Amino acid sequence: MNGIHLMSDFYGCEGDRALLLDRATLENYCVNACRDAGLTPLGAHFHQFTYDTGEQAGVTGTVVLAESHLAIHTWPESGDVTIDVYVCNYSRDNSGRARAIMAELASRFKPAHQREHKVMRGEVNHIKAVA
Amino acid sequence: MNGIHLMSDFYGCEGDRALLLDRATLENYCVNACRDAGLTPLGAHFHQFTYDTGEQAGVTGTVVLAESHLAIHTWPESGDVTIDVYVCNYSRDNSGRARAIMAELASRFKPAHQREHKVMRGEVNHIKAVA
Repeated sequence: MNGIHLMSDFYGCEGDRALLLDRATLENYCVNACRDAGLTPLGAHFHQFTYDTGEQAGVTGTVVLAESHLAIHTWPESGDVTIDVYVCNYSRDNSGRARAIMAELASRFKPAHQREHKVMRGEVNHIKAVA
Repeated sequence: MNGIHLMSDFYGCEGDRALLLDRATLENYCVNACRDAGLTPLGAHFHQFTYDTGEQAGVTGTVVLAESHLAIHTWPESGDVTIDVYVCNYSRDNSGRARAIMAELASRFKPAHQREHKVMRGEVNHIKAVA
């Protein structure tokens, strides 16, 4: 279960609007970004939010990976996006692949501002050492 | 997008083995735990890992919520589990609901040890204030 969990909050994205708005566009893009980074998508569920008028209002979804998961939520009205990429290192160190996905997403969403968090999951040996 | 993101890493779980091993059991339990806590499941994708013998080897999955997501990964060989619950506060404060789900899961998985992380997502105003 040890592995890196990257979280990015993107603000004021000025990239492709379809990625913020359209379920199929975002789902295909995220699944391919995981695959292109060398990870293994096992399935995905993405949901289209709509206004009462039927207009697209944002997307929320997850890609289940053999290595753990990607989760993404968009707020088109403000151009904001939250992204999680957690990759466990069960058979190899996937940290570089997680960073590559985040860099790819930032290059397409083009956030004006960005906030990053990193959590190392697992590492119970470390916890015991410092407890 | 502001909201609480709780992460728990459970070690040496001594609770219901089916939750660690069986896809349908874990998926139904997680979807119901979200609903019982007052959140809104929109869909889920859970994957059964198996050994070459066909024996169950663990489960990985996500529940997509109107309020964001739950993600869970199990390692039955060591009784370890990672769980994420991220709930945005778009229309109300969902922090108590996220904590209720984590407490419910701990009560059923019964970890011998547990590690917690909490990240407040969003809060760009706060970031600007301290930058």
